[in-house]
Amino acid sequence: MDVYFIGLGKMGMGIAENLRTHEGYAIYTYDKEKAITQQARKKGFTSYTSLTELFRPSTQRRIVWVMVPAGDITEKVLADCRQHLNPGDILIDAGNSKFTDSIKQHELSLEKNIHFLDVGTSGGMSGARHGACMMIGGDRSIFNEVEQLFLDLCVPDGYLFAGEPGSGHYLKMVHNGIEYGMMQSIGEGFNLLHHSDFDFNMPEVARVFNHGSVIRSWLMELTENLFRETLDFSEVAGIVPSSGEGQWTVEEALRKKVAIPVIAQSLMTRYASEDEEKYNEKVISLLRNQFGGHSWVKDE
Amino acid sequence: MDVYFIGLGKMGMGIAENLRTHEGYAIYTYDKEKAITQQARKKGFTSYTSLTELFRPSTQRRIVWVMVPAGDITEKVLADCRQHLNPGDILIDAGNSKFTDSIKQHELSLEKNIHFLDVGTSGGMSGARHGACMMIGGDRSIFNEVEQLFLDLCVPDGYLFAGEPGSGHYLKMVHNGIEYGMMQSIGEGFNLLHHSDFDFNMPEVARVFNHGSVIRSWLMELTENLFRETLDFSEVAGIVPSSGEGQWTVEEALRKKVAIPVIAQSLMTRYASEDEEKYNEKVISLLRNQFGGHSWVKDE
Repeated sequence: MDVYFIGLGKMGMGIAENLRTHEGYAIYTYDKEKAITQQARKKGFTSYTSLTELFRPSTQRRIVWVMVPAGDITEKVLADCRQHLNPGDILIDAGNSKFTDSIKQHELSLEKNIHFLDVGTSGGMSGARHGACMMIGGDRSIFNEVEQLFLDLCVPDGYLFAGEPGSGHYLKMVHNGIEYGMMQSIGEGFNLLHHSDFDFNMPEVARVFNHGSVIRSWLMELTENLFRETLDFSEVAGIVPSSGEGQWTVEEALRKKVAIPVIAQSLMTRYASEDEEKYNEKVISLLRNQFGGHSWVKDE
Repeated sequence: MDVYFIGLGKMGMGIAENLRTHEGYAIYTYDKEKAITQQARKKGFTSYTSLTELFRPSTQRRIVWVMVPAGDITEKVLADCRQHLNPGDILIDAGNSKFTDSIKQHELSLEKNIHFLDVGTSGGMSGARHGACMMIGGDRSIFNEVEQLFLDLCVPDGYLFAGEPGSGHYLKMVHNGIEYGMMQSIGEGFNLLHHSDFDFNMPEVARVFNHGSVIRSWLMELTENLFRETLDFSEVAGIVPSSGEGQWTVEEALRKKVAIPVIAQSLMTRYASEDEEKYNEKVISLLRNQFGGHSWVKDE
C-alpha cells in the first residue's frame, strides 16, 4: 500500500514510525513545518515540502493518513488533499474531529469518488508508536480493503469497524467523555486522601490500587507515574484545559436528551478550573451579603 | 501461623481457600450458618459450630480473620472474639467496615492487649480466591509480624501497609468512591451510545475500549463480559443499590469540606435509581404547572 502521511506531530510521527516497522508499505510524508520535514528526513522518511510534490501523479491507489488539529485545519487539509487525489483514493482523518464534521467530509469526498474513513485514535503517544486503539467509521468494503493497515498499527484486538460514516469519531468522542469522568473520579479520590487526617504515601496508594483492585486501569498506572515523578505539586497550576471531545459528548447528550451528569460535571469542573475571573463566586458571595449580611472576602 | 476464619461468605470462603494453597498455616473456620459449616467441612476445612469450640484454649498466637457484614454484625463478632482471645492475639477485620468503627475497634482491642488490623479488601470474589488487593491499617510492628499472610493472599505488589489504625478501611472507602465515579462514567457513556443514531455493537465497543485505549481497565473488561453475557437488558431492573462506602466517602468529604462532585453525583444517581416514589419529580412537575400551566403526566 502507498501511504501518505500528512501531519507529523506527536501522534502522526509515532504512527508513521510504527507503520514502517511493518512490511508492504511505501510511505510518503508531509508536514507544513519545515523543521518537522527536516526531522522526518533525518529519521529516513521520504518527506516533501508541498502537497503538489507529495501527490505527484501516480497510478497507484493512494491511502492518505491525515493527523492534524481538529476543526478548521483538518477541514482545509482534507479539501486541499481532494484537489490532488484520484477517484478511488482513500482519505483517512485519524485526528480528533467532531463526528458531524466527519459525516460532512465523507459526503464531500464521495462527490469526487474519493473514499473517506473517520478514525478515532486512542492510546496516547506511546500507543501511536507501539500499538494504538482505533475506531473506524465509513464504508465497510473500503475498510476491508485496508484492514491490514489497522492490524499493523494497533495492539492485538485494538481496532473496530464501528459502522457508518462518523461512527469512528463518535465512538472516540464518547470514549473521551468516559475518560473525563474517570479522571475526575481519580482526581477527587486523591484530593480527599490528600486532605484526610491520615498521612498516605500517594505513589504507594496508586501502586496498590493497580494490583488486584477493582479500579485498576491504565489511568491509575499513569496516576502512579505522576506521583512518582512530580511529588512537588507547587509548580503545577490547578488548571485543566479541554480539547473538544468532552464538550461534544455533552452537546450530543443535550441533542439526544440523555442524562450524563458525571461526564457533564467533569467538563464543568475543567471549565471552572480555567476561570480566573471567578465571577460566579463573586455573585454568590455578594448575594450572601445581601440577604444575610455575610461578609465577603476581599480580593488581593 | 494459626489462622481462624470467621465468616465464610463469598469473600471469606475464597480467602480461606486461597490461604490453604500456601504452606505454613493451620486453618480453623467458623460460620454462624450450619449449611456453610457443612459446606466448609466438605471442602476439607476444620470447621466449628461455635466460637467456644473454635477458640478452645491454645498457647499459640491466634490470628483471627473476620469477614462478616459491616456495621452491627462486625461489631458484635469482634466483641465476641475478644471474649475468647488471649493478650497478644491478632484480630483482623477484613470486611468493608467504616474507618471510624475500625479506629474504635482498635482501641477496644488494645484495652485487652489484643492487636487489631483493619484490612480493606478489593478485587471481588475472583480476587479473594486467586489473589486480592489489600490495604492495611494498624501498628506497623504487628503488620510486619504477619506480612507473609498478605504476601500469600494478594497478587504481587497487591498490598499496602497504609498507616495508622483506620487507614486501611479509609483507603478502601476512597477506592470505592473512585469506583462509583468510574462506573457511573462508563454507564453514562454506554447509555449515550445506546441512544445515538448509530447502531453500535456494544460488546465489540467494550472490547476495543479494552485494547490499547486510554480507558482500558478491569471495569471495562467486566463491561465487555456483561454485554457478552446479558444482551437482553429487559430482565434487569434499573436500580443500583449501594452498600456504604460511597456514602461514607461523601460524609468524609463533607467533614473535611473537600469538593467531590462526581463521586457525590454517582452516589445520588444510585439513590435516585432506588426511588420508586419519584416525589422530587412530582414536586417539580407540579411547580411547572403552577407558574407556567405546563401539564403534568398522570401516573398509571
